[in-house]
Amino acid sequence: VQIAILLYERFTALDAIGPYEVLSRLSDAEVIVTAERPGPVRADTGMLALIADAALADVPHPDIVLVPGSPDYEAQLGDGPVTRWLRAADAASSLTTSVCTGSLILAAAGLLTGRQATSHWLALDRLEAFGAHPVSERVVIDGKYVTAAGVSAGIDMALDIAGRIAGAPTAQAIQLMIEYDPHPPYTAGSPRTAPPDLVTRLRIRDRQAAQAS
Amino acid sequence: VQIAILLYERFTALDAIGPYEVLSRLSDAEVIVTAERPGPVRADTGMLALIADAALADVPHPDIVLVPGSPDYEAQLGDGPVTRWLRAADAASSLTTSVCTGSLILAAAGLLTGRQATSHWLALDRLEAFGAHPVSERVVIDGKYVTAAGVSAGIDMALDIAGRIAGAPTAQAIQLMIEYDPHPPYTAGSPRTAPPDLVTRLRIRDRQAAQAS
Repeated sequence: VQIAILLYERFTALDAIGPYEVLSRLSDAEVIVTAERPGPVRADTGMLALIADAALADVPHPDIVLVPGSPDYEAQLGDGPVTRWLRAADAASSLTTSVCTGSLILAAAGLLTGRQATSHWLALDRLEAFGAHPVSERVVIDGKYVTAAGVSAGIDMALDIAGRIAGAPTAQAIQLMIEYDPHPPYTAGSPRTAPPDLVTRLRIRDRQAAQAS
Repeated sequence: VQIAILLYERFTALDAIGPYEVLSRLSDAEVIVTAERPGPVRADTGMLALIADAALADVPHPDIVLVPGSPDYEAQLGDGPVTRWLRAADAASSLTTSVCTGSLILAAAGLLTGRQATSHWLALDRLEAFGAHPVSERVVIDGKYVTAAGVSAGIDMALDIAGRIAGAPTAQAIQLMIEYDPHPPYTAGSPRTAPPDLVTRLRIRDRQAAQAS
C-alpha cells in the first residue's frame, strides 16, 4: 500500500503525523511524504519543518492520498499544482482522505461534490460552498472518501482505515503499540463538550481573523 | 517559555509532534527542535524526516526539555552528547519531560533517580534498572519531572503541562482548537483494555526482538 502524505507551506503538523504514525505501522505500507518540490516544508507555527522526500510528480498513483489542513488552506485552492496533482491522484486512488481543513482543499478541487464530509469544527460549514455536505462527526466515510475533523481526529481516522485495510486485530495491535488510550485532562475537545463561552470566544476570534485577512 | 524538543536518529515522530502541536499554541511559547547537529533527522520508520533547527549547543537553557522515545532508545544511553546536554539542560529547566521510552534516556542520564516515572507499557519495568520507580499511568508527575506513557500519551501530557503553565482555560482552548475529543474505533490502547491474547503476542514479539538485537 503506497500512502502519499501531501505537505504544503503552513500545513498543521499533527494533521499529517497522527495518521502517519498509525499507517506507517501497517506491515506492507510505504508512506511517502510529498510536496510540490522535495525538501523542507515548514508547518503553520513556523517552529517546525518536515522534509518532503518526493516531488508530487514522483508520486503519481498512490493507493491512499492524505491531505492535512492548515489555517492557510486557502492558499492551496485554485488551479495550482496541488489541485492538479490531487485530481490526477484521486482518479486512481483507493482512498482519498483528509484531516481538518484538508477537506476544503479536496472539496475545492471538486473531489467531494455531493459527498458527505467533515472538517475542523470552525470550518465545517464552508464545505457547502464547495458542493460537499458537511457532517459534524469525527470521521466521515463516503465511498472512498474519508475525512476527519480537526487536527487530532486524524489518529482516529487512520485507525479506522488500518482496520479496513488490514483487519481489526492489526489495527488493535497498532493502537496498543502507540498506547492510544486517551485520557485528556479536560473535557473541551469538541464544541459539544467544551464550555459554551469558550466555543463562542473561539468563533469570534476566528471570524475576526477571517475579516482581517 | 522556551521549549526544546530533542531529536535523534530513529526517534518516534508522534512522541515529538503530539506535544509540539499542543505546546506551540501557548501564546508565548518558543519551540526549538534540536539535535546534536542541525539538519534532517529521520524517524524510526525511515519514511519521515524532521529538521532540527538548532544544535544542542545552541539551546543550553530551555525552560522545558522534551525527550521523545524510540525503539532504538538504547543508542542514546551512555555518556554521549545527548546525555551530556540533558544533564546540563536539566540543571536549569523548570520542567524535564519525556514521552514513551524517552523516560529511559532521562533515567539512564541519572535524572529520574528515586523518582516516579512512566514509559511505554512494554518498557515500563526497565525504568527500575536506572533507579526510577515505574508507575503504570498515562502521565506521571514527580516534582519537575513529567513522563508520559507510549507515543500518543504525549498529547495528554502536553495539555496537562499547558494547564499548569497558562491555566485551564488556555489549555481547554488548545484542546478545542486541535479538536482533541478522541473516539478510537477500538478499545485496545492499553494492556488493561486490549484483548489479552494481543497483549501476550506483543510481549513475546518484543522479547524476541530484544534477544535478536
